[in-house]
Amino acid sequence: MTGAPSSLSGHGGRLAAARARFPDAPAPWLDLSTGINPRPYPVPPQAFEDWGRLPDPADLLKLEAVAAKTFGVDDPARVVAMPGSETAIRLLPKILPRGRISLPAPTYSSHAHAWRRVGSELVADPEQADVCVVVNPNNPDGRSLAPGAVLALGQRGAVVDEAFVECEPSLSVARFAGAPGHERLVVLRSFGKFYGLAGLRLGFVVARPALARRLRDTLGEWPLSAPALAAGLAAYPDTAWADAMRASLADDAARLDALLTGAGFEVTGGTSLFRLARAADAQARFETLARAGILTRPFDHDAGLLRFGLPGFDPDWARLAAALETAR
Amino acid sequence: MTGAPSSLSGHGGRLAAARARFPDAPAPWLDLSTGINPRPYPVPPQAFEDWGRLPDPADLLKLEAVAAKTFGVDDPARVVAMPGSETAIRLLPKILPRGRISLPAPTYSSHAHAWRRVGSELVADPEQADVCVVVNPNNPDGRSLAPGAVLALGQRGAVVDEAFVECEPSLSVARFAGAPGHERLVVLRSFGKFYGLAGLRLGFVVARPALARRLRDTLGEWPLSAPALAAGLAAYPDTAWADAMRASLADDAARLDALLTGAGFEVTGGTSLFRLARAADAQARFETLARAGILTRPFDHDAGLLRFGLPGFDPDWARLAAALETAR
Repeated sequence: MTGAPSSLSGHGGRLAAARARFPDAPAPWLDLSTGINPRPYPVPPQAFEDWGRLPDPADLLKLEAVAAKTFGVDDPARVVAMPGSETAIRLLPKILPRGRISLPAPTYSSHAHAWRRVGSELVADPEQADVCVVVNPNNPDGRSLAPGAVLALGQRGAVVDEAFVECEPSLSVARFAGAPGHERLVVLRSFGKFYGLAGLRLGFVVARPALARRLRDTLGEWPLSAPALAAGLAAYPDTAWADAMRASLADDAARLDALLTGAGFEVTGGTSLFRLARAADAQARFETLARAGILTRPFDHDAGLLRFGLPGFDPDWARLAAALETAR
Repeated sequence: MTGAPSSLSGHGGRLAAARARFPDAPAPWLDLSTGINPRPYPVPPQAFEDWGRLPDPADLLKLEAVAAKTFGVDDPARVVAMPGSETAIRLLPKILPRGRISLPAPTYSSHAHAWRRVGSELVADPEQADVCVVVNPNNPDGRSLAPGAVLALGQRGAVVDEAFVECEPSLSVARFAGAPGHERLVVLRSFGKFYGLAGLRLGFVVARPALARRLRDTLGEWPLSAPALAAGLAAYPDTAWADAMRASLADDAARLDALLTGAGFEVTGGTSLFRLARAADAQARFETLARAGILTRPFDHDAGLLRFGLPGFDPDWARLAAALETAR
């Protein structure tokens, strides 16, 4: 094999590409290439009903209100729901004034892609930037910035992607985004990762009310599917589930670290929903795992790294342990 | 009552607003305020599964390919899926060059709203327009333009909303949209209305490949929920269901016309999915029907008109018949 398997490195979750490249791998695949919770929020029966009608705009307002409460935002007019935070990542550069953008490196690749598409200049130094993009905690390495530092960047202008912040809620600055004194701070939140329902496509932007309205107007009155609305309305108020899941994911992350370390990887970072690990032969291990039907996430920028999502159930843990033993 | 009930006239489907305004109406409401098929496509089991994973981009390509085949489009690169055609209506004015826009009047109100928001000038005469918006067949009156006339407008520049064309497929010009010689013709298609699954949010733009790519890039790689993807993949190839449903909806429309005529309305147009009817006392009838828990669609531009969607099942037909008798 020469170089990173680029058709599988752009984003996680490309099972069809993995199947095509490793046709002899045992099915079903165990997809550890994403940072999505494998134990989803128990979807309420309403999510399976009422797919015929257009979602009532009143329900969208209700969802934005419960999301605001969850994020600590006092005014729901600053919260706008999106069909996934990816759509927000794509739309914001088209709406915010053009300028110089600073980005952490490495980070989630869609940010750079979206800003480049509108002709913004990417700069390394936040001091030189008109808008600082921050992924907090960062994907894939889990690096984090203290809220005070993020708020300082927000005075200049910041888009803060809190896709994995449910693992470490104290990092969140969502409650400040767009509030008086923080007009240039925009926060993105994701529903699908922590709640394990990425297929429903639900995310949020927290921003000053005028920007929130503009985003709503860009997509129209029915941006969300009925099942996404129902799942969000049920899940966000359920703080008991979230607290228990947060603790359980932290246990799972420690269990995964032990497994990876035992197999000769050095765990270099991550969040409770994914772990970043280094090994000199990471590319060969990616291939061996893939031939065993386990998809992990390689990186174009560093061939020594692999990112591992969490297995969900005991047979998946056992399958990973066995394959790591082979890959060693 | 003075004037049209404006909180209920902007769009159909506002049951929460109806409940608030008519709190004593018997529940559940019978919502006839939209043009959505009340007998949905039988959703396949896959639509209820796999909500945890991000939808595989390969499935999105598959869906665009089966949609292209259904629309008669020879190159799937001209077909781009959206989370509902409403989102396409909002995005196109932001992407196409600014100019003078002609619109039929009356028509679906989102078109004018979206073009005005970007500062485009609305003109009455298609001859004066840079882009002609055509809703074919038109909502709410069912007026239609022959495909040849639409293609002629497309030479100048046209956005053709074929939201209800499944009722009358011979009107469609989707197969030409964006093809060589028709680069300035853009067609919008809706999944949820004819297939009765508007809550899943699925629509399409057919356009020249560069514009299709730009729309895809605006929303990102996961614009659709997993249930929307699964439903579209199952429904579009099922031409037997579509043919039988088309005939059945035509029968239902005739049955509704008979009921409305018998109740003293003059049916002035529509499609098989909704009927437009006139009565001197239309506003009073709207109120009487609403007090019976039946929501119809009034219009700000003409207080003598009501639009009726189709009841789905016999008890709904009986309820409408009884309420129309009272309203008379």
